[in-house]
Amino acid sequence: MDEDLIEQYRYFLKDSIRKEIDFSQTDQNRGADVPPIEKPYRANAPRIDLVKPDAWKNITRIDLTTAIGHRESRRAYTKEPLTLEEISFLLWTTQGVRGEVVGSHAYRTVPSAGCRHAFETYLVVLNGKGLDQGVYRYLPLSHQLLFEFSEERLARKIVDAVYRQPYPGNAPVTFIWTAIPYRMEWRYHLAAHKVIAIDAGHVCQNLYLACEAIGAGTCAIAAYDQEALDRLLRIDGKDEFVIYLSPVGKVRNLPEK
Amino acid sequence: MDEDLIEQYRYFLKDSIRKEIDFSQTDQNRGADVPPIEKPYRANAPRIDLVKPDAWKNITRIDLTTAIGHRESRRAYTKEPLTLEEISFLLWTTQGVRGEVVGSHAYRTVPSAGCRHAFETYLVVLNGKGLDQGVYRYLPLSHQLLFEFSEERLARKIVDAVYRQPYPGNAPVTFIWTAIPYRMEWRYHLAAHKVIAIDAGHVCQNLYLACEAIGAGTCAIAAYDQEALDRLLRIDGKDEFVIYLSPVGKVRNLPEK
Repeated sequence: MDEDLIEQYRYFLKDSIRKEIDFSQTDQNRGADVPPIEKPYRANAPRIDLVKPDAWKNITRIDLTTAIGHRESRRAYTKEPLTLEEISFLLWTTQGVRGEVVGSHAYRTVPSAGCRHAFETYLVVLNGKGLDQGVYRYLPLSHQLLFEFSEERLARKIVDAVYRQPYPGNAPVTFIWTAIPYRMEWRYHLAAHKVIAIDAGHVCQNLYLACEAIGAGTCAIAAYDQEALDRLLRIDGKDEFVIYLSPVGKVRNLPEK
Repeated sequence: MDEDLIEQYRYFLKDSIRKEIDFSQTDQNRGADVPPIEKPYRANAPRIDLVKPDAWKNITRIDLTTAIGHRESRRAYTKEPLTLEEISFLLWTTQGVRGEVVGSHAYRTVPSAGCRHAFETYLVVLNGKGLDQGVYRYLPLSHQLLFEFSEERLARKIVDAVYRQPYPGNAPVTFIWTAIPYRMEWRYHLAAHKVIAIDAGHVCQNLYLACEAIGAGTCAIAAYDQEALDRLLRIDGKDEFVIYLSPVGKVRNLPEK
């Protein structure tokens, strides 16, 4: 292997970079405005109220240890749609806000370095009960779903964008997380990027476990055509780009709880 | 900010690199030996049998959604030790092997790209019931704890290695995950490193949730002195290095379940 390149990539996983950063010169410490917690949207954009945690009726109580023990990557989904309640539940477990927003801090159901939470969650919805096919985005601050756009041959396009892995084309819903890296860079400069990747893992692990409570399954995908998927979501690929995705659907033959 | 450097670091979070890799030339595809699933150890090294899942007696059944909703970063711990059963539980939820090992594939309680699982788990034990103070390592294949070494003034040294953040000095046990990047590079070459970081997030999220089942709390730490912590663990900092850590201890005033 190319030893120099390998060493450079390994360096990214280390925290050695922190010693090189002059933290007095980060945007945060120079007084730059704190970036928005949530990507702004047009005031007249169509939004759907999601079901709030205290109104969930069909989310099974499942023992945590059982969920952890049963979790596995599940790639075969039934044709059953996901309901709005199920979608609400999965979005809340992965990026939901817990409690009140204090200043620029919105504490969530997952941890994030410095509470920066540098992600947006897009949903490719192919089969959501009562939902049109299309691309949506989660609005954690209001627990709503923003309709972004509809797209012809969406199933085919997302499959093409993941090098023809078929799972997102058969899944009723695919979670796609984008990074808005400046949210983290504002505070951590070059120490931002490693922790953004780690944070993506926090989020996706909750998705895996939450699926166990609704008879669903997921299989995270890290191999995708970056430029094609960014284009499909109509994001710029520079200040916002896809970092991870995971199709979700109902599954058969779940082991006993 | 330095735009070129920022762009280079952002690139790390993208999957664009995959298009640059000639996968026919990865070590896996050139027939190189698959790296060991678990870091080897001396045959006469002291090992402690951990408590297996079917023998746990004091792990509370806790609803998954409740655990996700209550999870928060907890930095203040009581002086209570962790028991061997509790330590066994936390190690299993974060890196335990589910079922049989098939060839080089050991499926675990967390997902990992290509089932490569590029981590080792070290425990800095300051107050474990029946355990001597010292540094231990988890052996997932046999569900055992390997005694690595004892170290004078261990609490002080770990605090120094995280820039004087006091939490690991007050925690009975601190989880420290190291990466052995070759395990992932063998298969993915330069596409290995992003997914190693994501995988660290999968692991730590389970630790956060599992703590909720034993009246404990944790707070992940990504800001640490890389070289000092690698030295403390007596690892080479090149083919194995620290990637993330998280102190764990019992907490007071947990919200009602």
